[in-house]
Amino acid sequence: MPNKILVLGAGRVGHAMALDLARSFQVTTADISAERLQSLQGITETFRGDLTEPELLLQLASEHDLIVGALPGDLGYRMIETLIPLGKPIVDISFFPQDARPLDRLARKHGTLVIYDCGVAPGMGNIILGHHDRLMDVASYRCVVGGLPKDRIWPWEYKAVFSPYDVIEEYTRPARYRQSGVEVVREALSEPELVHFEGIGTLEAWNSDGLRSLLHTMRAPDMIEKTLRYPGSIEYLRVLRDSGFFSKDEVDIKGQLIRPLDLTAHLLMKQWELKPGDREFTVMKVEIEGTENGSFRKYCYTLHDEGDAQSGVSSMARTTGYTCTAIVHLISGGHTLSAGCHPPEILGMQNGALEYILQYQKERGINYRIS
Amino acid sequence: MPNKILVLGAGRVGHAMALDLARSFQVTTADISAERLQSLQGITETFRGDLTEPELLLQLASEHDLIVGALPGDLGYRMIETLIPLGKPIVDISFFPQDARPLDRLARKHGTLVIYDCGVAPGMGNIILGHHDRLMDVASYRCVVGGLPKDRIWPWEYKAVFSPYDVIEEYTRPARYRQSGVEVVREALSEPELVHFEGIGTLEAWNSDGLRSLLHTMRAPDMIEKTLRYPGSIEYLRVLRDSGFFSKDEVDIKGQLIRPLDLTAHLLMKQWELKPGDREFTVMKVEIEGTENGSFRKYCYTLHDEGDAQSGVSSMARTTGYTCTAIVHLISGGHTLSAGCHPPEILGMQNGALEYILQYQKERGINYRIS
Repeated sequence: MPNKILVLGAGRVGHAMALDLARSFQVTTADISAERLQSLQGITETFRGDLTEPELLLQLASEHDLIVGALPGDLGYRMIETLIPLGKPIVDISFFPQDARPLDRLARKHGTLVIYDCGVAPGMGNIILGHHDRLMDVASYRCVVGGLPKDRIWPWEYKAVFSPYDVIEEYTRPARYRQSGVEVVREALSEPELVHFEGIGTLEAWNSDGLRSLLHTMRAPDMIEKTLRYPGSIEYLRVLRDSGFFSKDEVDIKGQLIRPLDLTAHLLMKQWELKPGDREFTVMKVEIEGTENGSFRKYCYTLHDEGDAQSGVSSMARTTGYTCTAIVHLISGGHTLSAGCHPPEILGMQNGALEYILQYQKERGINYRIS
Repeated sequence: MPNKILVLGAGRVGHAMALDLARSFQVTTADISAERLQSLQGITETFRGDLTEPELLLQLASEHDLIVGALPGDLGYRMIETLIPLGKPIVDISFFPQDARPLDRLARKHGTLVIYDCGVAPGMGNIILGHHDRLMDVASYRCVVGGLPKDRIWPWEYKAVFSPYDVIEEYTRPARYRQSGVEVVREALSEPELVHFEGIGTLEAWNSDGLRSLLHTMRAPDMIEKTLRYPGSIEYLRVLRDSGFFSKDEVDIKGQLIRPLDLTAHLLMKQWELKPGDREFTVMKVEIEGTENGSFRKYCYTLHDEGDAQSGVSSMARTTGYTCTAIVHLISGGHTLSAGCHPPEILGMQNGALEYILQYQKERGINYRIS
């Protein structure tokens, strides 16, 4: 049973996780920003430093029993790569964009357990599908998910808890799905459809590249994930994208080379920034169909979480972070996972894992409605 | 009667004017770009040089009898200021943004006649209003005008024959109107309304700052000008504007200071560029109401011009340029205008001026329907 946990990154989600883990463990939170660490002082140990320095990272991690990664995507991958040789378990929510297979080989070699993508989406959807895939012959998996502000402010009607670059990536990266057993690629923001949620109203779901590891680990012939936004804003995003505002190709503006994406991210960050007091919620619906014990079954998991107004922890930070901290508790308490760099559906296949994680989140007010 | 005319600027409109004037006068066309001058060689004299050089400009102009200005807005003002002391008439379509009053004082001092804003809008609307203002007690003037592509291509459904900076200026500069005798200011792109045109369909008219000199020269208590676009695109423009993409305030992008407007103009130029073979048209409706000889009268002038496919002269170049060349012919043939820097409504007040200009354009296939 690990006692000392290192949380790398004190952003929104890292901060929420550090607070949650500090109730059960001895926690150190590390970040490059003193400002982000300030409110954690006295609750966890804090360490300020440049976490892209491998020696510093290794030194810090070697003093702990388990590592929780909450760094930005690109740093996340390098952090895991650096720390695997230490042999300590790593649970990560950086949602790094790279292929995880090299990390898996490295983790097997060093006998290290790494679980990545431990958020709500990716994360909970994977765990749910892993759980059912073990018990039934899954024919189709469909997930629609989004984090949205309560107040719809024109034109974007959106607030990001992630970096605007990560959000814009959702609007540009082609979406990979599986249909009738064949992998298909759809343009991002395409095929919008209206979806109705009780207590929320009508949202719009469109293609985004969210299946990630599920395309490699799961056999279901039909798998799709879509992102939810308020109806309409997709049109403005397509205008920006199709006019070149999301482009990563440098253009020459009066002698200066600039990527349109960088300016767009700068401008939209101001529009999309979730400010203290902004009310937001997370909504997700996972539908799994298939054959169980010889008969057709359909499972539907619906999440509608409204954040914690009292603590100021945003809904996205809660639903993402408490999935990750639940997994930390789960693997701390003993597990049968072999060494490797695993996506969360592998954990979901473990007997009792989904039940544990749902119960853990329920105790923190996050309720998945199951039908 | 002047024989030698100097056309400054061989852009779309300057080019069309040089060709038109060469039928009656000895013309020299000057531009900084050899490429733009190329197709005029053999038809007019051509002169390549930097027209922002005052000495060069004065030398060139002194060899001619009348100057036609077709330079970009800002250069236009300085050109006029430089050349007024020569005493030669100047007819300009640069649509310079500055206040014309200092030029008027200078022109009076040197006994020079300058007519500016000699295009279609501003231009023809002013001439029409000037004409009727002399004959009736005008109660209201309303002008809606736009240049549009025949093929509507999502998202912008627009092609610019002007610089994208000038187009974006229309989307940002507050619109000044007169209502019930009081000057009012409306946000650009505001108060959209649908307007139906026979043979075109439904367009959308919204507030833009187009009255210019009319606010100073005309007494009508109600005056308004709106810009026409295909319905819908206004919404995307408001999204860009309200998100900061039209801002002239520099932002720091990875250590480089850049004005969002510069990148936006760069990206939208590619979207908006009118390419050879692109079909476009000009539409304008001028409505004047008032009391004439003791009874209520309403005059309506409608222009729907489809460019000249044979010559490749765009509609906007024709309707703008041939207003200007008509004025060149008109003042060449003798006129009673006093020295000064005049907007075209002053010319419109001259007996027979509007009739001459309408007839001149009719001979070139540009027909204003009057009712």
